[in-house]
Amino acid sequence: MSLKLGILGATGKVGGELLKLLEQWSPSELDLAEPPRLFGTSRSAGKKIKFNSVKFPNTEITVQDSQPENLKGLDVLISCANGEVSEKLTPEAIRLGVKLVVDTDSFYRMDPEVPLVTVGANDEDIDWHKGIIAGPNCSTAQLIIPLKVLNDAFGIKRVVVNTYQSVSGAGKAAMDELMSQSKRVQESYEQSAGLQQIRVAEDQFAFNVIPKISKFLDNGYTKEEWKVITESRKMLHSPELKITCTAVRVPVLVGHSESINIEFLSSFNLNQVISVLKSSPEIQVWDHPEMYPMPVDAAGTNPIHVGRIRIDESAPNAINIWVVADNLLIGAALNAIRLVVKASERGKI
Amino acid sequence: MSLKLGILGATGKVGGELLKLLEQWSPSELDLAEPPRLFGTSRSAGKKIKFNSVKFPNTEITVQDSQPENLKGLDVLISCANGEVSEKLTPEAIRLGVKLVVDTDSFYRMDPEVPLVTVGANDEDIDWHKGIIAGPNCSTAQLIIPLKVLNDAFGIKRVVVNTYQSVSGAGKAAMDELMSQSKRVQESYEQSAGLQQIRVAEDQFAFNVIPKISKFLDNGYTKEEWKVITESRKMLHSPELKITCTAVRVPVLVGHSESINIEFLSSFNLNQVISVLKSSPEIQVWDHPEMYPMPVDAAGTNPIHVGRIRIDESAPNAINIWVVADNLLIGAALNAIRLVVKASERGKI
Repeated sequence: MSLKLGILGATGKVGGELLKLLEQWSPSELDLAEPPRLFGTSRSAGKKIKFNSVKFPNTEITVQDSQPENLKGLDVLISCANGEVSEKLTPEAIRLGVKLVVDTDSFYRMDPEVPLVTVGANDEDIDWHKGIIAGPNCSTAQLIIPLKVLNDAFGIKRVVVNTYQSVSGAGKAAMDELMSQSKRVQESYEQSAGLQQIRVAEDQFAFNVIPKISKFLDNGYTKEEWKVITESRKMLHSPELKITCTAVRVPVLVGHSESINIEFLSSFNLNQVISVLKSSPEIQVWDHPEMYPMPVDAAGTNPIHVGRIRIDESAPNAINIWVVADNLLIGAALNAIRLVVKASERGKI
Repeated sequence: MSLKLGILGATGKVGGELLKLLEQWSPSELDLAEPPRLFGTSRSAGKKIKFNSVKFPNTEITVQDSQPENLKGLDVLISCANGEVSEKLTPEAIRLGVKLVVDTDSFYRMDPEVPLVTVGANDEDIDWHKGIIAGPNCSTAQLIIPLKVLNDAFGIKRVVVNTYQSVSGAGKAAMDELMSQSKRVQESYEQSAGLQQIRVAEDQFAFNVIPKISKFLDNGYTKEEWKVITESRKMLHSPELKITCTAVRVPVLVGHSESINIEFLSSFNLNQVISVLKSSPEIQVWDHPEMYPMPVDAAGTNPIHVGRIRIDESAPNAINIWVVADNLLIGAALNAIRLVVKASERGKI
């Protein structure tokens, strides 16, 4: 099926990743009828963006203002815009005849009328979409695929997640801010050798860790932590899933890491766990005893890297694993394209 | 009691912190009979170090070669040397009449003949020393004080620890390396705006996290993680304590952070937990709902900062807390001096 595809929020960080992926995607997997149409704010409208794929070599695409009427004629719209834009434009797009909106934003994720899907974890939920499919939060995306295969194999009793999240999760401006803060810390460090910690900003990304991502809720969790909890429950179809999370920002550009402690309902041995993880095409297992994945390994790659797989004897049937992935890819752009491909394969566009 | 005090490894990072603390310490708490004697490698011997306290203003101390005969006449030796030096010199010091060696290194920590003590957690173990008292690993020190008071109040069933450890735990050279790597990453980032992750070293501290501190053991844990587990058990006098740990290096100069999930044996409410934590003079509780401690807050300060205290509903009687401390202080230098003071108060020097 040949698709007319549009991207809302095309000039942002995730939009850029999407375009790069679309350039590489083979037409046999995802056949575009025309170069992707790009939509942005009125400020970005008119901007020309290069696009170079096998089917559409050396193309130049002009960013259009994201007015509803411009969305007419599209089969699929991938939205990487923020909540407000998404809230307004998504129903408009469907009213105007767009057959599927894949939304990477959080606005529709917990809507019971909207499937929330990570391809590789719960593809079957694509089938009941009513026009919108939501993609998960980046920190949930890389968690849910290992959880899903392990849950199927051994049954999950409880999960404790700690995240080490890169600043690209907060956008391009945050990455620039990290770099500029880092420079200031370095200058102070060089000028005064005795200084051990240098404060250069109220919300300091550089040489610091911040145990708060997004705002606080009344129960003491942050919105980011609560997303991990509620989105995991929805995608595993397990509304009572026992899971807790602490989400922490670290001074890394791209690549989220997660330390995950899992208690299983049934017994297992380590080789079984490794086999189950290896059975997922989305997962790359690091099972050499001296090797472990890091953000610098995962950034720019498609797999979910799982390493440091070891028994935790502090509880019956428990393990620790360390999971690293490119948050812009699996956590947003890559999953969005996979959603379009899967929905097409399943005849749901 | 007026003490003759020596410092082994005086020119290292922890040695420097020790000297700064000794300058500030009031003679009423720790009365030195003479300026501290400083010992280093033959390479450091002869170096002159400034010392300026109320009792010994504007003093210059010459670093001596750490030969056993130079240790004669000391009452107390604080050793911040590495394992090999400590292994060799500590018994020599005692043979030569030094009444107490406080050793910050790991070599004697798990020796059943040597008490392992964090002041504020298990001071009573000072009383059975036979010449040596070991201080804990930095990541255990800031964990054990909150664990101890909470264990006394509610009984601990299980602990899951995830660390976010600064590079100063690996010494001054690692801090310089972090800074130099960071500079290289920044240059690449500026030169090529599209780059999202920049690799500048095999073992890259900068803009990366490393889920491996110290070497791997056969059970898949690192030595650092195993220290947290075994040292916690020893200091809590609970050889079967259910505890697991994942230790991760983050690009922070000074200040370790730990995300700690604790299941208790008995029920509690959050106010009780907060009161119990506040009852420890070593702990500073951050209980304002919008406030949380970070490494830039904790570096250079004495307290163990505890924040993000919240109920974890994924298990009965469970909480999450976030603990940040200056790893060079509570994790080494400050605890060492407190050990000398406490041993003196308890008549054990």
